[in-house]
Amino acid sequence: MSLSVGAATSVAAPVAAPSPEQILQIGLGFWASKTLLSAVEMEVFTELARGPEGLEILSGRLGLHPRSAHDFLDALVALGFLERNDGVYSNTPSTDLFLDKKKPSYIGGILEMSNQRLYGHWNKLTTALRTGQPQGEAGNEATETFTALYADPARLKSFLKAMTGVSRGANLAIAAKFPWANYRTVVDAGPAQGDLLTQVALKNTHLLGIGFDLPEVGPIFEEYMESNGLSSRVKFQAGSFFTDPIPSAEVVMMGHILHDWNLEEKRMLIAKAYDALPQGGALLVYDALIDDDRRKNAFGLLMSLNMLIETPGGYDYTGAECIGWMKDAGFSEARVEHLVGPDSMVIGIK
Amino acid sequence: MSLSVGAATSVAAPVAAPSPEQILQIGLGFWASKTLLSAVEMEVFTELARGPEGLEILSGRLGLHPRSAHDFLDALVALGFLERNDGVYSNTPSTDLFLDKKKPSYIGGILEMSNQRLYGHWNKLTTALRTGQPQGEAGNEATETFTALYADPARLKSFLKAMTGVSRGANLAIAAKFPWANYRTVVDAGPAQGDLLTQVALKNTHLLGIGFDLPEVGPIFEEYMESNGLSSRVKFQAGSFFTDPIPSAEVVMMGHILHDWNLEEKRMLIAKAYDALPQGGALLVYDALIDDDRRKNAFGLLMSLNMLIETPGGYDYTGAECIGWMKDAGFSEARVEHLVGPDSMVIGIK
Repeated sequence: MSLSVGAATSVAAPVAAPSPEQILQIGLGFWASKTLLSAVEMEVFTELARGPEGLEILSGRLGLHPRSAHDFLDALVALGFLERNDGVYSNTPSTDLFLDKKKPSYIGGILEMSNQRLYGHWNKLTTALRTGQPQGEAGNEATETFTALYADPARLKSFLKAMTGVSRGANLAIAAKFPWANYRTVVDAGPAQGDLLTQVALKNTHLLGIGFDLPEVGPIFEEYMESNGLSSRVKFQAGSFFTDPIPSAEVVMMGHILHDWNLEEKRMLIAKAYDALPQGGALLVYDALIDDDRRKNAFGLLMSLNMLIETPGGYDYTGAECIGWMKDAGFSEARVEHLVGPDSMVIGIK
Repeated sequence: MSLSVGAATSVAAPVAAPSPEQILQIGLGFWASKTLLSAVEMEVFTELARGPEGLEILSGRLGLHPRSAHDFLDALVALGFLERNDGVYSNTPSTDLFLDKKKPSYIGGILEMSNQRLYGHWNKLTTALRTGQPQGEAGNEATETFTALYADPARLKSFLKAMTGVSRGANLAIAAKFPWANYRTVVDAGPAQGDLLTQVALKNTHLLGIGFDLPEVGPIFEEYMESNGLSSRVKFQAGSFFTDPIPSAEVVMMGHILHDWNLEEKRMLIAKAYDALPQGGALLVYDALIDDDRRKNAFGLLMSLNMLIETPGGYDYTGAECIGWMKDAGFSEARVEHLVGPDSMVIGIK
């Protein structure tokens, strides 16, 4: 089960001269995109996970108008997200696994968030490009985006679930690839629901873990540990990585965290991670790292534009940049390892 | 020079089980899409058609904020729309040809319209799916969309140019493939700028043509004929295909017209075309025809959802449906021929 967005990256890979086809395909790509987002919003795949259904019953249960139902469902067939046999619609194996809300493998949270917030915010991309200012709900205060988010429990939970959806593939790769046998304790700074700690702890049963985040995250994090049977080994510790030290551990992890912040804040977080580690301890940072030549990982560059739209100072960065920050902070060595799709991790050793 | 959106169609072609990659790639596809739309809006490609430029000068001329410039331009590189050598950005051969506003080969009108109107309207797709009502500027009166459009000369010209951009490939195919040697006169009902008549008349110098549309279209149409040296052979005739007969000719054409209207209106237009033709005359209809099994031409199905959002009753249709309407109207034979990408034509012989 890999959850990367590698295909988005590979758009750039062959770099054949783009034809008019490619121009129109990407330029009108918001049609297919929004069609899938609406399907997730309307819970098409959750409904069909109950069993295949014909046009009429399915339209009734989903609340689709007769004018739209046939085209909408057949567009989902043509895009490869539904199957249709003798007029009866069903999920594909992948949409049944990944887009049924009732399964733990559901990754639709990031699509729900895109549908509710990001798609509309991106309509103001040109203004963001001209002003350098975020275009979401937030103003321009450094932490306002997250303050607003944390103030609304329902929105917070939805955001944290979205983060699980977009991170699962990388989390599984980290659980498998990092030399966990050499370490006994791990803290995740900014863990969201805690899926990274979960995948790591499930695969490495000797580890003890801490999720470190603002107190509002506590109940959501603890519920997730409970549901994965990890409550005894993985605890929540409330705090802010702006005003408090990061709890000490042999490994500090930050997944999809550094890109939320500006350069000064990135360096501050790396310094706090350094302080939390013993000699020989490891800082593990991952994001959709931009390739050092900034011409291949389209997804990483677009993610950085998403940070432009969503945050006052955040941006994505290359592996070389992150290694530089770690070296400046005192780490004795640092290296990049690819995870899945657009995500790579940078490992710094104190 | 082919202008189809075939690649969008081919998204569906292999129908491998969609992986999480495909789900996230299409679900977040609005990022790449809106990035290209903003680039067209900011005239990145028109600027670079003057010559390659470095980051600083280019940012200054485009009005890009320092926070955004590097990521935005490198994202366009990674998506294959710009090249970058030693920090100097330039168009690709394709974007130089198709997205430089100063070239007659410019097809960006459809992307400008998408950026200004469609992207935002599609944010209301779920409401359209639930209500069957259009979500653009128009209300629900049958012809209100077009009334509003025709009332604003600047918006009308921009719309008609957009139609040229999205139709050029099909127009060239029709000019080459249809047996024009058998006919002497042709009328295009709803010709926009007149690009279909232009391509057909340029390649078939014996033909005389008429563009038939509301009077507001006249000056725009005549300017286009003038610039293509066709003013003596292709004339404009003002009228409404709702209240007036279609002018008589041996061939009647309707390109991207029938999908704007509901079933009753579609049948009425086909009947009026029949009346305008002599025995043996031909009606040529083209659109992004949906495949008869409604599972391959994703672009045609998404175009139909675009008609849901933009018009009170419009929808796209299969070749088999259109052949049925033509037979019902009295045409003795009718057949489908593929043009380019998602576009096909239906030819009916009286």
